[in-house]
Amino acid sequence: MRSPQFQAARNGETPSPSPPQQRHNHHHYNQTPFHSTLAVQKLRRFNWLIFIFRLAAFFFSCPPPFMLTNSHGSSHWYDFDAFRFVFAANAIVALYSLFEMVVSVWEISWGLTIFPEALQVWFDFSHDQVFAYLLMSAQSAGTALARVLKEDQATCNTSSWFCMQADISIALGFAGFLFLGFSSLLSGFRVACLIINGSRFHL
Amino acid sequence: MRSPQFQAARNGETPSPSPPQQRHNHHHYNQTPFHSTLAVQKLRRFNWLIFIFRLAAFFFSCPPPFMLTNSHGSSHWYDFDAFRFVFAANAIVALYSLFEMVVSVWEISWGLTIFPEALQVWFDFSHDQVFAYLLMSAQSAGTALARVLKEDQATCNTSSWFCMQADISIALGFAGFLFLGFSSLLSGFRVACLIINGSRFHL
Repeated sequence: MRSPQFQAARNGETPSPSPPQQRHNHHHYNQTPFHSTLAVQKLRRFNWLIFIFRLAAFFFSCPPPFMLTNSHGSSHWYDFDAFRFVFAANAIVALYSLFEMVVSVWEISWGLTIFPEALQVWFDFSHDQVFAYLLMSAQSAGTALARVLKEDQATCNTSSWFCMQADISIALGFAGFLFLGFSSLLSGFRVACLIINGSRFHL
Repeated sequence: MRSPQFQAARNGETPSPSPPQQRHNHHHYNQTPFHSTLAVQKLRRFNWLIFIFRLAAFFFSCPPPFMLTNSHGSSHWYDFDAFRFVFAANAIVALYSLFEMVVSVWEISWGLTIFPEALQVWFDFSHDQVFAYLLMSAQSAGTALARVLKEDQATCNTSSWFCMQADISIALGFAGFLFLGFSSLLSGFRVACLIINGSRFHL
């Protein structure tokens, strides 16, 4: 595990205030192959890409407000197991994405991870994987239920807005899954870098 | 991309018959750090692990024969969208796992990939990812439908064996998903090795 100072330097960000003799070495740091402008740009682009995926995953998995008020007559969305599952999975992923956005901004701004490096990298990847499967599972269950409800004339014909809202929520959830899946590819790549190179950077 | 000869040597297998002057260098190959006994053992263990995961994924995703004959009265399993999806996803994954078992045996026996190295590594990883999500999606949809059928007294009470068979198929599918998910972690690691090291080996 590297010191925050070194992490900041490797990531090409301005190091935090440091003692004079270290400042003196700053030019030397920039000579290492890790600090070529190209490498710094690539690492920065990688971090921004992660941030954008996190933002998109958050945006799409936020349960739309009308989902919460979705009911028709005597039955509500929370009467159906699968819709409760969709709601819970989306809410978990939205909260997680919010946290990961903070982590991502932190890394872009200061070149530091919030947890120690190894813990952070494994935490991100394992949660990305599990939550991506969770989200996919929830949306599929929701889709299966929505299809059954559509065949059941009593539910969807008398209240087509109810079924429409359910469809919209599920479609948004699938989009959220897509971006979480992309994030999990990137965080998986960082885990592999950690295993192979001993640091989360691939350059 | 490396020549088959070099791949075989790196993987620690006996190289295929080679011209005399190359035979002469054989001892030299064994001196490179890649050919320490430990590294060879690790690579071999990695390949065997992949093979075992493939075998397990194949075993669990093979649709049980009784699934195909699963019907009660006038309705059959293929009358239900979600069960058709479960069957199709399981069949696709079973075929794919069978192919990947051949690839894996090929690699263990000769230290070679069937397709060119980069193509093979990306092919394995992308299909593992997509099929793992597909399998998860199918089982979740199947579970949601099975739950609805259980509430519907007419279907499950008059033929509880029908519902039981559906549950077993879905449970096996989830187990298959688990092993395919593990495979995708390993093949993802090989992709990362290819990107970072330029070869599918991590040592």
